[in-house]
Amino acid sequence: MLNTSGTTISPLSVPQRLLLGPGPSNSHPLVLEALSNQPVGHLDPFYIELMAEVQGLLREVWQTSNRLTLPMSGTGSAAMEATLANVVEPGETVLVAVKGYFGNRLVDMASRYRANVRTINKSWGEVFSLEEIEESLIKFRPSVLALVHAETSTGVCQPMIGIGDLCRKYNCLLILDTVTSLGSVPLFLDEWKVDLAYSCSQKGLSCPPGLGPFTMNDRAEEKLSKRIGSVPNWYLDVSLLNKYWGSDRVYHHTAPVNMNFGIREALRLIVEEGLENTWNRHKVNAEQLWKGLESLGLSLHVEKDIRLATLTTVKIPEGIDGKKFALHLLNNHGVEIGGGLGDLAGKVWRIGLMGFNSKKENVDKVLNLFDSELSKFKS
Amino acid sequence: MLNTSGTTISPLSVPQRLLLGPGPSNSHPLVLEALSNQPVGHLDPFYIELMAEVQGLLREVWQTSNRLTLPMSGTGSAAMEATLANVVEPGETVLVAVKGYFGNRLVDMASRYRANVRTINKSWGEVFSLEEIEESLIKFRPSVLALVHAETSTGVCQPMIGIGDLCRKYNCLLILDTVTSLGSVPLFLDEWKVDLAYSCSQKGLSCPPGLGPFTMNDRAEEKLSKRIGSVPNWYLDVSLLNKYWGSDRVYHHTAPVNMNFGIREALRLIVEEGLENTWNRHKVNAEQLWKGLESLGLSLHVEKDIRLATLTTVKIPEGIDGKKFALHLLNNHGVEIGGGLGDLAGKVWRIGLMGFNSKKENVDKVLNLFDSELSKFKS
Repeated sequence: MLNTSGTTISPLSVPQRLLLGPGPSNSHPLVLEALSNQPVGHLDPFYIELMAEVQGLLREVWQTSNRLTLPMSGTGSAAMEATLANVVEPGETVLVAVKGYFGNRLVDMASRYRANVRTINKSWGEVFSLEEIEESLIKFRPSVLALVHAETSTGVCQPMIGIGDLCRKYNCLLILDTVTSLGSVPLFLDEWKVDLAYSCSQKGLSCPPGLGPFTMNDRAEEKLSKRIGSVPNWYLDVSLLNKYWGSDRVYHHTAPVNMNFGIREALRLIVEEGLENTWNRHKVNAEQLWKGLESLGLSLHVEKDIRLATLTTVKIPEGIDGKKFALHLLNNHGVEIGGGLGDLAGKVWRIGLMGFNSKKENVDKVLNLFDSELSKFKS
Repeated sequence: MLNTSGTTISPLSVPQRLLLGPGPSNSHPLVLEALSNQPVGHLDPFYIELMAEVQGLLREVWQTSNRLTLPMSGTGSAAMEATLANVVEPGETVLVAVKGYFGNRLVDMASRYRANVRTINKSWGEVFSLEEIEESLIKFRPSVLALVHAETSTGVCQPMIGIGDLCRKYNCLLILDTVTSLGSVPLFLDEWKVDLAYSCSQKGLSCPPGLGPFTMNDRAEEKLSKRIGSVPNWYLDVSLLNKYWGSDRVYHHTAPVNMNFGIREALRLIVEEGLENTWNRHKVNAEQLWKGLESLGLSLHVEKDIRLATLTTVKIPEGIDGKKFALHLLNNHGVEIGGGLGDLAGKVWRIGLMGFNSKKENVDKVLNLFDSELSKFKS
């Protein structure tokens, strides 16, 4: 006997939202158009060519020549896990520099790969100095240092000059989280001597969530090739994925074909605009937002010189229910902004200007809303 | 200095393909339309409601009341890995009944979770009898038996009556691969006493690849809750995912929002057609295909009573280069059929009639092509 719910569900009707939170951000219309193509086979010659295009574009946007550059068939968190799963062996020391929510996630993940996890910590809203990094490398002598470039939970951008050199000096690999910087904030993976990095599709790339760009260089590949045990994660095992994304084209899993159509267009559009133009657009719009918020009497959580162009943390003024205000913007104005996470829960809003959404009209829109609506929430 | 490729890549232009291979299959046009909506936030009240709809629809299509039913944010292989990752602890015996390529994949995955993996084997194209299953359960006393319902590599459908009862009798969990049966071949998870199951989005569901439906019942949940160590895979850890998909709605990872728009529509369309009507449509069209292929003088690899309605393995006649013929159909007629995998490489073609693509005009089209084109490839 068949069990049926008996209820009828109507066809999908999605409300229009302007996504100015921590991500997802809105997608470029051409990306959405790309997504809506009929799929092709994952071994179709057309698709094989598209895979190479995606890899080439990703290398350019990341400023790397890493051969092993590909989008993982999962979200950014899957790509994050892939970095650790592939290069960490049980018992090895992994040092995580924690200055926000996503540093803590790295700690959790690394421990599942049976690493000896050590941490250094900073207040949420601050960044690490070179001296602090060097001291900790001397103290813990890790095999891997994992660090977040653009902390989505706090809105800081970690200065990177010199960190890669320290990692080479103390013979450890450098993993960098670029989830909220890829395609929007200056990134020079090779110049910075980053060994592994990961990102997502739904922020600076203006594509829906669902793919996790991943890259590793020769140093990281060498560590992978010298593993004693196999990678304890089949889906994210780069040695298998490399046979599909490399020249062998051996079937691993059925690729998320349509999402790859989308990211191909997303990356193409960034390269078409010009990487420096894109970075500059994000900077200009963020500065306008900061100026506007401050002229409304609001305070920003992060010092200007380490502030992230893609994600701004705004202190919730005394007496305002931040959650209620955000819900009001969503329900009555179709605008999403984010609340605080972890140490900053209830203390800040998070306003994102990412990819396609980093434009003047969105800056004006959110400033106008803060101007006209916030006073209604004063107790 | 910025490194730029300097090459210009043109806007995406995807060739039209009729996907009659082992998957992906073509998507329903309404699913593609759903995909192309602007994303909403993964904590948006609208999205939270949509998640519940997807869960309810999945339960109905799988014929289960399992609370923990959700699409993993990866392809079917991720969902496959999720079943093992969550309930297998190091050192436990996992028995895999291998009768094709995907059985071997289960073996590889289980070993990465440090299980004591044991196998029983059948020729590619056959199924296991109840007696064989019972003997092996007595011999190996596994904690988990993993089995493929619909083997995409061979085209067999494993009869399921009685297997779940044996697993309860010998106190082991039953994991079932329903990748090529969900939404297209009769499936009664609860009636069959299946403890964990997984599937994909790109076959019977007529959605692009990218999501991996996953379900586990109370028995499996109990085993998960009694684990000594944490799940050695952060991304697929159901105890964390349950906080997002359950009533707490705690952020885990940014959901692939658009793919979930797609699967919601895909599942809705199946329920709208009626599950039994869908199953019957697949059966009728497959039987037409079988009859037609045989009347062209071709032989089918699998005995009729265990033949899968979604995927037919056709023996490649003596003297024909199977790969060349398939490439000819793709390049000159826009029709994709599959070749053999593993033990059947070079021996069979695999013709899929799945979801939206299971219709009379596609049966006619593929039969006409075999009729008119195959003779050109005789040596």
